[in-house]
Amino acid sequence: MGRRERPLSSVIPRAAATRISLYLRYLEKLESLGETTTSSQQLGAALGVTAAQVRKDLGYFGQFGFPGVGYKISHLIPEIRKILGTDRSWSAALVGMGNLGSALFQYRGFQEQGFCFRALFDRDARLVGSRMGDLTVEDVADMPQAIARQSIELGVIAVPADAAQQVADRLVEAGVRGIFNFAPTVLTVPEEVGFVSVDLAIQLEQLSFEVTQLGGLRGRPGRTDVTNGKLTS
Amino acid sequence: MGRRERPLSSVIPRAAATRISLYLRYLEKLESLGETTTSSQQLGAALGVTAAQVRKDLGYFGQFGFPGVGYKISHLIPEIRKILGTDRSWSAALVGMGNLGSALFQYRGFQEQGFCFRALFDRDARLVGSRMGDLTVEDVADMPQAIARQSIELGVIAVPADAAQQVADRLVEAGVRGIFNFAPTVLTVPEEVGFVSVDLAIQLEQLSFEVTQLGGLRGRPGRTDVTNGKLTS
Repeated sequence: MGRRERPLSSVIPRAAATRISLYLRYLEKLESLGETTTSSQQLGAALGVTAAQVRKDLGYFGQFGFPGVGYKISHLIPEIRKILGTDRSWSAALVGMGNLGSALFQYRGFQEQGFCFRALFDRDARLVGSRMGDLTVEDVADMPQAIARQSIELGVIAVPADAAQQVADRLVEAGVRGIFNFAPTVLTVPEEVGFVSVDLAIQLEQLSFEVTQLGGLRGRPGRTDVTNGKLTS
Repeated sequence: MGRRERPLSSVIPRAAATRISLYLRYLEKLESLGETTTSSQQLGAALGVTAAQVRKDLGYFGQFGFPGVGYKISHLIPEIRKILGTDRSWSAALVGMGNLGSALFQYRGFQEQGFCFRALFDRDARLVGSRMGDLTVEDVADMPQAIARQSIELGVIAVPADAAQQVADRLVEAGVRGIFNFAPTVLTVPEEVGFVSVDLAIQLEQLSFEVTQLGGLRGRPGRTDVTNGKLTS
């Protein structure tokens, strides 16, 4: 789910970017267990990739290993956070305060990743002016000025599919640097704007597909792909 | 985000399964515009794949085209819903009624895809017994019996990462046929159980990564991959 299919650039493949996130998670786990160093072998084994792949992935961003030591965990964690941009906070606007938008606003995961909602927007006059936490829902028509005024960097789209492209265009015009789309539709965003899309409806459909097909396949030969959920990307 | 990396079986690649979802979405759009027929060319063009790929994807499940006509939209839509298992409803249990679980429970997208929550579970004694909509939160210790009693088919995991594998194991033991995981961790699930994982934290991290790297890449040559969000998979 969710990512553009093309690599971010000619040098950093999409899958490498996802693995960088997963290396960080594993390093944090090692740190919590009191470990101080790790190796490409250990990182690779945790993710089911080779040590050479780990070295290649990290190699896009610099040289982080120490000869004879491997990686110092306390050194590599902040380096990866810097690569991922999670060493800082991001000011974000949430557009669409219906059912999904309200749920996302309540979900603490955004804050935990440094995403701070600074503005909320909706087109529904019944919602505009209402309070949500510390914020007041603003009219989507006022979005460009509000985003510029508050130097908002990221936009989160939780509007219906038919309104999503227009909202994305306005967010881009207003100057956001990245868009997180939850609307169940394909969006076009300029190449210089970051873009991640999560389509829960398609994910649910994929689960019912999988369960349906597994029902049909049960007992058939040929299903040797046992390793599930190896990468949550 | 979200899918196991391996194909569902030796015959149906993962990417084909996702495209089937996207074909359905496009067919529903065509139907709403009053169209009655379409072609592999048209479906492929909408998704950025070749007509041969469309024929191959649909060919895993049967022969749906009519000579000289192409696909009859009113015929293909219900056929694809049957393939995806969205022609029926699924009874589901939601495990973990904290911040994310509550948000998911309120999110109408589950119902729209035919996922009906029939039971809610938490391990927190302060939540057990509380009412959420028509349901009462039950103790996670009672999960196996409750799931068997109500013939629950799917489990949705919204517990913290450190509890997720145990919950998944119990859901499997209780006999669910599929698991939708929102816990930010890698889970192992037997091959005969459907599995989809959505890790919002990693998706957020990927957006900040992309924005950070685009900041560095801006103005650099070599970024010719303009087509964004082509597939939301």
